[in-house]
Amino acid sequence: MTKQRLVYSFGGGTAHGSAKMKNLLGGKGANLAEMAKIGVPVPAGFTITTEVCTAFMKKFKYPPRLNAEVKSAIKRMEKIMGRKFGDPKNPLLVSSRSGARQSMPGMMETVLNIGLTTKTIPGIIKKTNNPRFVWDAYRRLIQMYSDVVMEKAEDIEPAEGKGIRHQLEVELDKMKKARGVTQDVDLTAEDLEGLTKIYKAKVKDVLGKEFPDNPEDQLWGGIGAVFKSWNGKRAVSYRRIESIPDDWGTAVNVQAMVFGNMGDTSATGVAFTRNPATGEDKFFGEWLPNAQGEDVVAGIRTPNPINESTRGEGSTLPSLEKAMPKAYKQLFAIRNKLEAHYKDMQDLEFTIEDARLWMLQTRNGKRNGPAAVRMAVEMHKSKLISINTAIMRVTPNQLDELLHPMVDPIAEKTADKLAKGLPAGPGGAVGQVVFTADDAVKWVAEGKKVILARDETNPEDVEGMRAAIGILTSRGGMTSHAALVARGWGKCCIVGAGALNVDVAGRKITVDGKTIKEGDFLTLNGTKGLVYKGQLPMITGTEDDPHFHAFMKLCDKVRTMKVRTNADTPADSKKALQFGAEGIGLLRTEHMFYGEHSEKPLFKLRKMILADTEEARRVALDELFVDVKDTIKKTLDVMAGLPVTIRLLDPPLHEFVPDALEDRREIAKSLGISLERLNARADVMHEVNPMMGHRGVRLGITYAEVSEMQIRAILEGAAELIKAGKKVFPEIMIPVLCDVKELSHQRVLFDKIYPEVLKKYNLKKIPYMFGTMIEIPRAALLADEIAEVAEFFSFGTNDLTQMTYGFSRDDVGGFVPYYLDHKILPRDPFEVLDQSGVGELVKLGIDRGRKTKPKLKVGICGEHGGEPSSVRFCHNVGMDYVSCSPYRVPVARLAAAQAVIDK
Amino acid sequence: MTKQRLVYSFGGGTAHGSAKMKNLLGGKGANLAEMAKIGVPVPAGFTITTEVCTAFMKKFKYPPRLNAEVKSAIKRMEKIMGRKFGDPKNPLLVSSRSGARQSMPGMMETVLNIGLTTKTIPGIIKKTNNPRFVWDAYRRLIQMYSDVVMEKAEDIEPAEGKGIRHQLEVELDKMKKARGVTQDVDLTAEDLEGLTKIYKAKVKDVLGKEFPDNPEDQLWGGIGAVFKSWNGKRAVSYRRIESIPDDWGTAVNVQAMVFGNMGDTSATGVAFTRNPATGEDKFFGEWLPNAQGEDVVAGIRTPNPINESTRGEGSTLPSLEKAMPKAYKQLFAIRNKLEAHYKDMQDLEFTIEDARLWMLQTRNGKRNGPAAVRMAVEMHKSKLISINTAIMRVTPNQLDELLHPMVDPIAEKTADKLAKGLPAGPGGAVGQVVFTADDAVKWVAEGKKVILARDETNPEDVEGMRAAIGILTSRGGMTSHAALVARGWGKCCIVGAGALNVDVAGRKITVDGKTIKEGDFLTLNGTKGLVYKGQLPMITGTEDDPHFHAFMKLCDKVRTMKVRTNADTPADSKKALQFGAEGIGLLRTEHMFYGEHSEKPLFKLRKMILADTEEARRVALDELFVDVKDTIKKTLDVMAGLPVTIRLLDPPLHEFVPDALEDRREIAKSLGISLERLNARADVMHEVNPMMGHRGVRLGITYAEVSEMQIRAILEGAAELIKAGKKVFPEIMIPVLCDVKELSHQRVLFDKIYPEVLKKYNLKKIPYMFGTMIEIPRAALLADEIAEVAEFFSFGTNDLTQMTYGFSRDDVGGFVPYYLDHKILPRDPFEVLDQSGVGELVKLGIDRGRKTKPKLKVGICGEHGGEPSSVRFCHNVGMDYVSCSPYRVPVARLAAAQAVIDK
Repeated sequence: MTKQRLVYSFGGGTAHGSAKMKNLLGGKGANLAEMAKIGVPVPAGFTITTEVCTAFMKKFKYPPRLNAEVKSAIKRMEKIMGRKFGDPKNPLLVSSRSGARQSMPGMMETVLNIGLTTKTIPGIIKKTNNPRFVWDAYRRLIQMYSDVVMEKAEDIEPAEGKGIRHQLEVELDKMKKARGVTQDVDLTAEDLEGLTKIYKAKVKDVLGKEFPDNPEDQLWGGIGAVFKSWNGKRAVSYRRIESIPDDWGTAVNVQAMVFGNMGDTSATGVAFTRNPATGEDKFFGEWLPNAQGEDVVAGIRTPNPINESTRGEGSTLPSLEKAMPKAYKQLFAIRNKLEAHYKDMQDLEFTIEDARLWMLQTRNGKRNGPAAVRMAVEMHKSKLISINTAIMRVTPNQLDELLHPMVDPIAEKTADKLAKGLPAGPGGAVGQVVFTADDAVKWVAEGKKVILARDETNPEDVEGMRAAIGILTSRGGMTSHAALVARGWGKCCIVGAGALNVDVAGRKITVDGKTIKEGDFLTLNGTKGLVYKGQLPMITGTEDDPHFHAFMKLCDKVRTMKVRTNADTPADSKKALQFGAEGIGLLRTEHMFYGEHSEKPLFKLRKMILADTEEARRVALDELFVDVKDTIKKTLDVMAGLPVTIRLLDPPLHEFVPDALEDRREIAKSLGISLERLNARADVMHEVNPMMGHRGVRLGITYAEVSEMQIRAILEGAAELIKAGKKVFPEIMIPVLCDVKELSHQRVLFDKIYPEVLKKYNLKKIPYMFGTMIEIPRAALLADEIAEVAEFFSFGTNDLTQMTYGFSRDDVGGFVPYYLDHKILPRDPFEVLDQSGVGELVKLGIDRGRKTKPKLKVGICGEHGGEPSSVRFCHNVGMDYVSCSPYRVPVARLAAAQAVIDK
Repeated sequence: MTKQRLVYSFGGGTAHGSAKMKNLLGGKGANLAEMAKIGVPVPAGFTITTEVCTAFMKKFKYPPRLNAEVKSAIKRMEKIMGRKFGDPKNPLLVSSRSGARQSMPGMMETVLNIGLTTKTIPGIIKKTNNPRFVWDAYRRLIQMYSDVVMEKAEDIEPAEGKGIRHQLEVELDKMKKARGVTQDVDLTAEDLEGLTKIYKAKVKDVLGKEFPDNPEDQLWGGIGAVFKSWNGKRAVSYRRIESIPDDWGTAVNVQAMVFGNMGDTSATGVAFTRNPATGEDKFFGEWLPNAQGEDVVAGIRTPNPINESTRGEGSTLPSLEKAMPKAYKQLFAIRNKLEAHYKDMQDLEFTIEDARLWMLQTRNGKRNGPAAVRMAVEMHKSKLISINTAIMRVTPNQLDELLHPMVDPIAEKTADKLAKGLPAGPGGAVGQVVFTADDAVKWVAEGKKVILARDETNPEDVEGMRAAIGILTSRGGMTSHAALVARGWGKCCIVGAGALNVDVAGRKITVDGKTIKEGDFLTLNGTKGLVYKGQLPMITGTEDDPHFHAFMKLCDKVRTMKVRTNADTPADSKKALQFGAEGIGLLRTEHMFYGEHSEKPLFKLRKMILADTEEARRVALDELFVDVKDTIKKTLDVMAGLPVTIRLLDPPLHEFVPDALEDRREIAKSLGISLERLNARADVMHEVNPMMGHRGVRLGITYAEVSEMQIRAILEGAAELIKAGKKVFPEIMIPVLCDVKELSHQRVLFDKIYPEVLKKYNLKKIPYMFGTMIEIPRAALLADEIAEVAEFFSFGTNDLTQMTYGFSRDDVGGFVPYYLDHKILPRDPFEVLDQSGVGELVKLGIDRGRKTKPKLKVGICGEHGGEPSSVRFCHNVGMDYVSCSPYRVPVARLAAAQAVIDK
């Protein structure tokens, strides 16, 4: 603090500061300066810098220059406002407010109406001709000042119920009782005048000091109280939570008071420069005549529409446009000026005092998803903002809102919350609860909407899951079966809602002493993981919104990384193409056996897996071959030459062993073996830790015939399309690799089958790539060797996260929620890619792979491929593409574009 | 090949070459040159270099100089041997043998008796006075030469059964039939002379060429045949397997023939400069008078002892020392000379021809473990070898042989092998098979020795495992429960012998149609993983061998890395101290609940785990506290101030949930809850992949009271010893860490309890360290952050291997044996640390940890800590110590010393 100003004035069309000086002036002060500077009529005032605050906190006294600078700033205000501080005839009243670099709403103190004294009151009464208003303002000043300045700022800690604020409230109540009224507003000017006397006596009595009757004393008291509140308990603990440094300090803004409640030529209001709910380019707001700002937001009086074009249906209240056309015109011009200046939709507060318009605040307005998208597109179209700015204006979550119906957030506030689980599938859903997949299918066939509730789901539940409008489980994590399946379909899903006791046999859920029976309605907020009793209203998504498509085009212009989808069927693939997928990054062979039309293939798959001789297995494989080829062919056809990465059989085999005796009996019969022998085979296949067991390529090596069948199905499916004049680009991907030798082994199989298929179809070439998942830590570490054989890498960050953390995704329910609650983990690593641990392996894998093969194609196909921060990471480490479930494709496209801009 | 010799002569006390010229002269040629040079009487000869071979292979002709050099070398031989090549009166006979840089036993050709022609035969008959011997030699020459030189080397490929060798055999058989004899030796000189004529006619007939009757032709034929055999099928495929480059080529050694079968003044024998079975410094060997070398090793005649001092019990055969004292004296002097020269025990071949001693071969002799140790110690003591050489002379496996009884390898050759499994616990065991832990205990109480056979073992089997002399399972890998427990005790154990069908209920094993019933005898070779039917003889270990202790002292002088032990009880700790452990690197809290005296603590542990309220858990913990403190205190006392690393509770809790209904009922009763409620609690604890579930520090965080109990038990145990004037150094170790915040959480608990314990015992200080396992890949990756809180790292390479490979150690039986058989994995990574993948994480973890804390103490406590190549790795990456099971401590001490020398 050498010769830098301590006090920055603003108002009258100029200002010492500007919007860039947030660190010194705080957010509010910088913004007021900026508005003044561009000619917006703000009540004049000045900002005492944050550096004064930090100096004051160190030495407990103000810098010597401060007094003089404040005096001169007051003079400036007096001049602009045409009033004088302490003047008996035409007094200036001021407020003292905090304003830190980062907003800390409600955490610090404010003092209003500074300057009201026994000497100035008569003048102001005369000027306003509204004695009641003046005495009420004075009463409020005493109440606020005695509490904030005289008690709190002096570190007086009164006994419970003995605080001055409370004691003055008691006097107010007495007065109302004495007058036989219940509302403050029913007290007359005389009542209030009398009350101020009682108040002042009480202050003297309780605090041992006179309430100051000198404007200067009031002013310095107000300034000091704001500074001191920086170290108040609330502010300090808020800073701890938000990681705001203590040494930032707050600025103090002293500003002329203006009043919207000085009669019929006064008014107050709030407005948005565009519609924050739809994004429509229409000036939108509410106002009240003869009122103070808090009246508009308090909800006691119904506010009037600001103009005719945004008048709600059935509203007959007068608009500002009609009632005060001159002020409205000025306001409208300011609206245009501010939006042009800030290049974003603004949230405005204004007051009209005696027909004179004052702007109290402007800030970037909050908006929902559809509005954010529309405004970004339209502002860019009108050349207000660049393409990059437009893209950065929409958060991935806002974009996601467009794609799913949502629970109405207002209704949600007062709803009966039953439990909180993990937000596994976004959007909202309302339906009647059922407890089995069969019931779900049956009830839906009867035209009902159902929520399927289970402890956890498994492949046998898939039909019911597809039928249900929402899925709810009491166990499992973000990558549990239910979560994976639901997300793939874009279906609302909450998993791991551990508080719920799902009693499938008893057809009921019990929680906290409440019981939800079959058929009762539940509402799920899958975006937040909240479960409500009953039916809450919904807001529908707008995926067909033309602004949405225009916005996605902007993103596509900027992004350099491709976005593919994880899809297992031709239907999924079609959906994903609509969302802009540029290929399939993960087609899971085993998933084509799930779902509604899959009874037969699933049965054959089980037969194949449970066969206990190679011969029997080959027979089952031959049967299965037909289905696999058919699905792959159809999918390649849909994708029309875009790359389709097909992962060979991946999961632990016993995942496919049916538990039901009847199913086992049927399979045994079909295999021509005894149930006993089948059971023995199933027992052999039991594993202690199946996730790290006999799966993926380990299976494709020990049972090479299983890999062979799949490779042949892929190549023959592709060959048949080529013969039909179609384009295809299959990519064969080997899962669960830990060593290059495993890949070489599978490559030998491929090299045997490929010429056989060429010969069979009389073709010279089938386009293809041959690559691998990198999902085991060792594969990432030895990526240089693996790249000798692999033509592409696809990082399977689900499994890579499991192995890198040693977290079984099926079992994290026992401790990960606790870890998140207690900040041992910042985020669920199955939801948000852990950049420091898992991400390091990914980086290392890419670097080493490209050391061997500089143009190695690299992508990601874990669930993280649709999570925005993870997508950015993928861009930053140089991936060629991300792949995610169809409904996440737009989000990934946005995140990929934002990553380019960020860099 | 400029002016370098093509031919290197040796013999007569000098040589052109030396032992260093292996690449040029081959191993055999270099060694013959070296012996000649130091004055050992080798039959004279010369070596044609490997470069001639490679040149010959390229151009299919010899370098022009070769002929002249061979001629002059032959002259030199004639002079030394006093005979002339082709001389009718005193002819020189020679052999032509291969000799590559690396030994390729039996893969190339040899031609003996070159120089026998119709002209030289009479002279040699006269000289030897043994016509039968001469005609037999001639007959052999024709047979060998026609096959090797005239047929094979000319690339003639006869039809099946039409090869010349076979056709000559037929003639031999005819002759024997005609003479009415069955043995070759029963044919007379005349018979053999007749046979040579028949042979020569047959050769002419079959091959269309005369058998050469000129010594020169025979010689060049023999040389060419050896060179050509370098590219013979057998040699080529051997080189592929052994990775020997084709361009090395072979040398050809032409050497004078000497004969031990020229009458009673001739003899032949083999000898070792020291006893290869015991290492005793006594000249040891066998000989036969009037015999050829093959007679000694063929086993038809019982060979005589070489001297009186090594005469076997009951042997009355004449020793060479007595029968030919002069030759023996010369031989003994040569024995001393060779050992002094080669500085290692030599394996010798010699022939005495007409009272003249010739040395045919010397090489380093093979030896068993006890002999290797004794010779290393004694040769070092007598200053023959340096300490480093002594240490490198003993392989870790040889050292291990000393510590366990072994199956007699000779008996093993002809034994009835039932199956091969994984060698989980070394040594051998013979016993009667039982199928339950209870039976094992009961039978042993009756004085029997038993082998406990199971599918797999679990903690409930521990008493039976302790009682059994050997353990056999049909499932599980090198770090399965059975393997870990057995290795800890140094007990013979074979796991994963998948061919065995262990039928516990039926009390039998079936395998390959055979049935082994309860009580039948089995023999296990735990070092190799072999299971035999019946009782094989055993060789007992010699861990009390004074040479062993002397050898370990040598190792300790050299090594810089400490060796600790994994021990869970005071008894284990005592054992480990005897083996030289310098601390405990891993004390597993949970293991103290196993074993014979543990019924009560195990019950309490289960109670604690199954308690479903914090209150009930705290009661159980208070009970458990007493046992934990007691065991830790006793162990700290045994270790007397050496560091003792105590790992807090690690395994997934449900590992401790008993399956038996009766046990569950008892625990429910003790907890005062219903069996139903207990079962519900057990269900909640069920995990899909327990290895990556709710365990280790995850448990210590969610149930902080469990960690608190253990920390308090450790500190109070230590405090009580300090009060009693003892020294202690506990190291508290947190398992299964993936993030530094987990460690910080546990440190907070420690920091709360430590001052409480100091206060309780009125102490100023308890020495301790606070550190962590690094066993999760993420912990290795983020070791820099973890080292901010950890005072030491201990790499848990068992789990680190599981996570890095994605291999569940319980489930690898399905594919790892296949991977090993098919060379997809070079070694089982649970046995030998995978240096390229897991090892990279270890290196990275150490580097990053020491970046934060340069003096960070680092060790390893996985099973790899006792595996020699892994121990060397640990030394090379800068670890402070390794820790292994007590019986592996000596091996680790040796490997650590060898690592220093290697570097």
